[in-house]
Amino acid sequence: MKGTVGELGEFGLIKELTSRLTSTPAVRIGPGDDAAVVAAPDRRVVASTDILLEGRHFRRDWSTAYDVGRKAAAQNLADIAAMGAVPTSLLLGLVVPADLPVTWATELMDGIRDECQVAGAAVVGGDVVRGEVITLAITALGDLRGHEPVTRGGARPGDVVAYTGWLGWSAAGHAVLSRGFRSPRAFVEAHRRPEPPYHAGPAAAGLGATAMCDVSDGLIADLGHIAEASKVRIDLRSGAIDIPSQMHDIGQAVGVDPVQWVLTGGEDHAIVATFPPDAKLPARWKTIGEVLNPSGAPQVTVDGIPWHGGSGWDHFGDGS
Amino acid sequence: MKGTVGELGEFGLIKELTSRLTSTPAVRIGPGDDAAVVAAPDRRVVASTDILLEGRHFRRDWSTAYDVGRKAAAQNLADIAAMGAVPTSLLLGLVVPADLPVTWATELMDGIRDECQVAGAAVVGGDVVRGEVITLAITALGDLRGHEPVTRGGARPGDVVAYTGWLGWSAAGHAVLSRGFRSPRAFVEAHRRPEPPYHAGPAAAGLGATAMCDVSDGLIADLGHIAEASKVRIDLRSGAIDIPSQMHDIGQAVGVDPVQWVLTGGEDHAIVATFPPDAKLPARWKTIGEVLNPSGAPQVTVDGIPWHGGSGWDHFGDGS
Repeated sequence: MKGTVGELGEFGLIKELTSRLTSTPAVRIGPGDDAAVVAAPDRRVVASTDILLEGRHFRRDWSTAYDVGRKAAAQNLADIAAMGAVPTSLLLGLVVPADLPVTWATELMDGIRDECQVAGAAVVGGDVVRGEVITLAITALGDLRGHEPVTRGGARPGDVVAYTGWLGWSAAGHAVLSRGFRSPRAFVEAHRRPEPPYHAGPAAAGLGATAMCDVSDGLIADLGHIAEASKVRIDLRSGAIDIPSQMHDIGQAVGVDPVQWVLTGGEDHAIVATFPPDAKLPARWKTIGEVLNPSGAPQVTVDGIPWHGGSGWDHFGDGS
Repeated sequence: MKGTVGELGEFGLIKELTSRLTSTPAVRIGPGDDAAVVAAPDRRVVASTDILLEGRHFRRDWSTAYDVGRKAAAQNLADIAAMGAVPTSLLLGLVVPADLPVTWATELMDGIRDECQVAGAAVVGGDVVRGEVITLAITALGDLRGHEPVTRGGARPGDVVAYTGWLGWSAAGHAVLSRGFRSPRAFVEAHRRPEPPYHAGPAAAGLGATAMCDVSDGLIADLGHIAEASKVRIDLRSGAIDIPSQMHDIGQAVGVDPVQWVLTGGEDHAIVATFPPDAKLPARWKTIGEVLNPSGAPQVTVDGIPWHGGSGWDHFGDGS
C-alpha cells in the first residue's frame, strides 16, 4: 500500500478501510448502507462518543497508527463496559489530511478492528472526510444483557470501593517517554496501548455493583465523579493499592512518587466500582476503600485526608 | 451568554450545552455518565455517523449556528429514517476553537436539539474538545419497530421508483447564495435547513419498500448506489418529477436548467425507494421511474439514456 490519502481518494480509502474489517453475529448490516444495524437483545442500547485530535490526544512520533487505533477504540469500549454492558460495535468518523500516507490510515483501522475483537465488538460504520488535523470520532455501542446499567450515582455509605485492571501504568509510561526514554517496555506499552478489563464491567454488574466508572481521568478524579453523583464521601486506603516494584524504580529515576501515578494517572481504563459490603469479589478485584456519609460536600479522601490533586502533584515535584 | 469557549472552559461549556437539552421516554440515561442508555425495543439498533467540518460542510457566513445544527442533525437522522427506522437519539462530538463565541456553540446545540425533536429523538451524549477547526461528529441511533431494515440492495426488476420530500431545492438555494443573493427565501431556507420526511422512512418499510436511501449526494448518484447494490438498471422519467415554477425562474436567472438541480442536487434528504409494482403508495410519494434488468453494468438512465453526471452538468453550462 503506497501513496497518500489524497492520491487514493476518499472512495478508494473507504474501500481500503472497510476491506480490512471483521464482523460478528451481532452485526446485521455492516458498513456501506445509509446506516448499520446491530443486535440489541437487551432492548436497550448503551452508547458513548469520544473525539480525539492529533497533537492533543495522540502523537504520531510517540505511537504507531496501529497503537493509536487500539487506544482510541479501547477508550470508547471501556466506557461501554463501565456501564456494565458488553461492547457490540463501533462507528468511526475520520478526518484525514491529503498528505497522510494510506498505510497510516489502514494501520489505524487495523488497530481499531483488533481492539474491537478483544472486546467482542466489530466496526459497523463510519465516515471519512478530508481535513487539516487527523481527527477520530468514535462511537461505541453495547448491550446490557439483562443487567441494569451501573451509573456513577448509586454508591451508598457502607459500600466498599474496589478496582480491577491497571492503575498508574500509563502515567509511568508517559513519564518515561516524555524524558526521552523507551523503556521499561511494559510501562511504555501500557501508555501506548492500554488493556481495559472489558469483561469486568458486566461481571461487576452481575456482582451487584452500586456505582461504576472507568479510570480515564485518574482514580481520584473518577471516584470524585462517583462521590458527586452519589452524594457520598469516598475514602481510599493508600496502602491498599499495589505499586509494582518496577514502578517504584521508575519513580526514583524520574523523581516522582509513584503513588501520584496510581492516584491521578488516567488512560489505563481500569474499572473502579462500589459494591455492597457483603459482596463476594473475585480475586482480580482489589478493595481499596469505602463509601462514607459525606461530611460537607461529596469528596474523595485518602487515608481520611482530603486529596488536593494539584498541590499533591506539585508536592511531588513534577508539573508535566 | 457572553464570552468565548476558551473563557468559559470545557467543563462550563458542556454544562451550558447539556442544560439546553430535552429528553424523551426512550432515553434511560442521558448525558453525564460513562455512556448513555437508550431504548431499543426492536432488539436491533440502527446507527449512522457523519463528520462535518467548517469550510467544507458549512460556512459561518452563510448559515447561522442554529441552522448548522439543524442541518447536521437532519443529515444523520435522515440516514436512520432511510433504513426504515424511527430515530431515537443522537450523540455529538464537537471540536471548538478557543475563540469561538459561546453563543455560537449554544445556538448550534439548540438547532441540533430542535431537529432531534422534529424527528422524535433526543441528544443523549457527546464529547467536547478544543481544536482549530469547528468539527461536528454526529452519530444517530434508531429503532426499526419490527420492520426489516430496508437496504440499498433489494430493488428488483419490475419495481417502481418513488420519492417523497424535496428534490433540488437545496441546490437551487445554493446557486442563489453563491451568486450573492438572499432570495427567493424558500430555496435559501431549504439550503440552510433541509426538511427530511422522517416519517416516510418507516412508512415506506411498512408499504413494502424493497430498497431505500435518502438523497444526500443527488438523485442520480443515490439511485446509482441502489442500482449497484441491487444489480439492476433504474430508469427515470424526467417528466415525472415536479419542478416548481419558481425553480424554473431561478434557473433562468442564473442560467441553469433546473432539471440539473433535481437530478444531481443533494442535501435535501428526500427519501427515494423502490416498491413492488402493486404497492399502494400514498399521494405524498411521487412515482418517477422503474427498475429494469441491467443491460450490462448496473446504472441509472433518464428516459432510457445513460446519464453522465459530469457532462450533463457541463452541458447546462454551470460548473459550480
